[in-house]
Amino acid sequence: MRKVNYNRLSSWIEQLSRIGATPEGGVRRLAASDEDRDGRNLVLSWMKDLGLEIAVDQIGNIFATLRGESDSAPIMIGSHIDSVGNAGSLDGPYGVLAGLEIVASFKDVGILPSIPICVAIFTNEEGVRFQPDMMGSLVHAGGMELESALATTDRTGKSLGDELARIGYAGPVRCGSIKPRCFIELHIEQGPILENEGITIGVVEGVQGIYWTEVEFRGQANHAGTTPMHLRRDAGLAAMSLATEVKRITDSIPNQVGTVGSITLKPNLINVVPGWSQITIDLRNRDGDKLHDAQLRFEAAIELVQEKENVSATVTPLVRFEPVEFDHNLVAIVECAAQSLQHSNRRIVSGAGHDAQMMARVCPAAMIFVPSVNGVSHNPAEATNEEDLYAGLDVLSKVIESILKDASS
Amino acid sequence: MRKVNYNRLSSWIEQLSRIGATPEGGVRRLAASDEDRDGRNLVLSWMKDLGLEIAVDQIGNIFATLRGESDSAPIMIGSHIDSVGNAGSLDGPYGVLAGLEIVASFKDVGILPSIPICVAIFTNEEGVRFQPDMMGSLVHAGGMELESALATTDRTGKSLGDELARIGYAGPVRCGSIKPRCFIELHIEQGPILENEGITIGVVEGVQGIYWTEVEFRGQANHAGTTPMHLRRDAGLAAMSLATEVKRITDSIPNQVGTVGSITLKPNLINVVPGWSQITIDLRNRDGDKLHDAQLRFEAAIELVQEKENVSATVTPLVRFEPVEFDHNLVAIVECAAQSLQHSNRRIVSGAGHDAQMMARVCPAAMIFVPSVNGVSHNPAEATNEEDLYAGLDVLSKVIESILKDASS
Repeated sequence: MRKVNYNRLSSWIEQLSRIGATPEGGVRRLAASDEDRDGRNLVLSWMKDLGLEIAVDQIGNIFATLRGESDSAPIMIGSHIDSVGNAGSLDGPYGVLAGLEIVASFKDVGILPSIPICVAIFTNEEGVRFQPDMMGSLVHAGGMELESALATTDRTGKSLGDELARIGYAGPVRCGSIKPRCFIELHIEQGPILENEGITIGVVEGVQGIYWTEVEFRGQANHAGTTPMHLRRDAGLAAMSLATEVKRITDSIPNQVGTVGSITLKPNLINVVPGWSQITIDLRNRDGDKLHDAQLRFEAAIELVQEKENVSATVTPLVRFEPVEFDHNLVAIVECAAQSLQHSNRRIVSGAGHDAQMMARVCPAAMIFVPSVNGVSHNPAEATNEEDLYAGLDVLSKVIESILKDASS
Repeated sequence: MRKVNYNRLSSWIEQLSRIGATPEGGVRRLAASDEDRDGRNLVLSWMKDLGLEIAVDQIGNIFATLRGESDSAPIMIGSHIDSVGNAGSLDGPYGVLAGLEIVASFKDVGILPSIPICVAIFTNEEGVRFQPDMMGSLVHAGGMELESALATTDRTGKSLGDELARIGYAGPVRCGSIKPRCFIELHIEQGPILENEGITIGVVEGVQGIYWTEVEFRGQANHAGTTPMHLRRDAGLAAMSLATEVKRITDSIPNQVGTVGSITLKPNLINVVPGWSQITIDLRNRDGDKLHDAQLRFEAAIELVQEKENVSATVTPLVRFEPVEFDHNLVAIVECAAQSLQHSNRRIVSGAGHDAQMMARVCPAAMIFVPSVNGVSHNPAEATNEEDLYAGLDVLSKVIESILKDASS
């Protein structure tokens, strides 16, 4: 009887978290950095110990396959091991290493699955060093040209292509040539919903659409003491007024979230009216029409702010991901697995982007969420209770079991 | 017949502007820097060429005195020659060098004024490198202890005292020991009012009160996609809402100006709800009661924002200068001088701080403003038309004439 080994998973997560450990207790493994290389080397050593067949593609995605009784398309379980600047240990690694644990559990008892199982590590999911995020899975799914992806550069001008070659992960395999039967990603929620409702398993129905926009305002820098209010062209006030409008619009649309996460003023001095500003706006909704509506209202607000503050604006769309709906059948399989293991569960829409949404373009895909303590992620304080981590692994294992059954029937 | 020499003044301004010239065509002479030293040395050489009696006090203020027929307290004409990071050539030097031109015009014709005339260069008026601003005149007026002033440090930890000694301007004269009969400062407006109204001379009645406050908000950094609006503690939104409140309050109070010139968000990333923010607020009014009212309403707004956004705030007062009213008699003398020279003029309240407001604590003081092109200052684009610069010099000269007449009568 095949059984997953909780301790092995925990030990793998812990060992990987030591690579790129930060003084604050977090993890820093930016895509294609030395730390990313060391993390990849470590996980690859475990994959090799398990005797898996390794393929590295041209964008550096790693695929480790356990042969099956038949040679058909594999079930793919995957996520990423790159991180943001000061991350926790679970965002990404949990999904990869849980997949590896499933494969290991077959090895433990010497059973071949009916069809192959492939564990995938996608390159540059976080998009901190090279943009866009979810790049490895996007290229795999044919949503971005390999050449453009390799040509993206970090702030110091280094290209992803050069950096992948440097760390030894510019592989020979053609991107997208490994075609899975379906794709499953186990992940921490990175939000507070499951914890707030005391629920163990999130059955992920899809991923919110994401619109990222940058707005630059040009006004006139002036002395804060000598320039009467009516003669000002305050680019800072324009940006900050727009931010409060984003909040107002967001609050009026169901399931909408909107964030002004960054702002830059110039000259950014206490006694100078800002002559220039730049803010970023992150709008998300599970419903594409509502998201589009939010964006239109936001753009109308920019017009009004320009007029009111006598400034001019430049609007740059940065990211436009429409909402993704996961495969209904696969979502139902996840739900049944959680039910049959008697884990409390609810359907949920992911607020964050994930590799699974890219894989959904080329095969049936679904995700399993476990709760995040205090909803915190992208932070050294990121955590999930052990019993929840193991519940997620159990659900993943049950899902794989169901798919294998379907495949062999 | 004594006559001022426009060309000499222009040449002095031009020569001084070459010291600390920036690539953008501006000037950078931060207090007690090498450039400040070179600028001081240059002006001092002109002072010495004119045979003036030089005194440097313990805070580095320079006093250059032309003897008078009587040995009574001097008329003091002064300003500063330190600058902000990328300034124009007029803010400060115009007042110092116009004073020097008055003195030179006496020398040209070999006439002694009835009482001494002293040209003052005050240390660190801008307050960019060492805080507070107007430091030299503040210490001269007894508003700040010499020891605390010398102990202030720049961002690299260097003290003003050490830096003054290094550049050779830690003088022996006791601060405040030179007691003028009155103080006159000629300065560019640094605002758009005179230009907008097509007026040549601003008869400065006083200086606005200035309240500078820093507000820090602490919330919770969260994922911008996964954190529902109602569970957020968005410190960035709190700061930006407060900025729009500052604007609302300011617009409702006569003669009030209010500026949020700088903001810092952490982590300042597009997809993270800011967990921390800091903004600065600059409130000014000529009327102390109204300024106080604005500050109270601003502080009430902070309370509301804290509650609404579920964040906590720390409020740090940075500067509290109450409005200053200049000497009525001296202001009338300035007004008469402008009238008699047939220059269009209006009474005006300075929006910026000036050394004259510190000197007003110890003697009758007044200021003369000339227009700033486009109201721009603290910027390489700072400019005043030549005829306005010369008109200001003429008014200053006439004012000195009147005071000398009064003194000898």
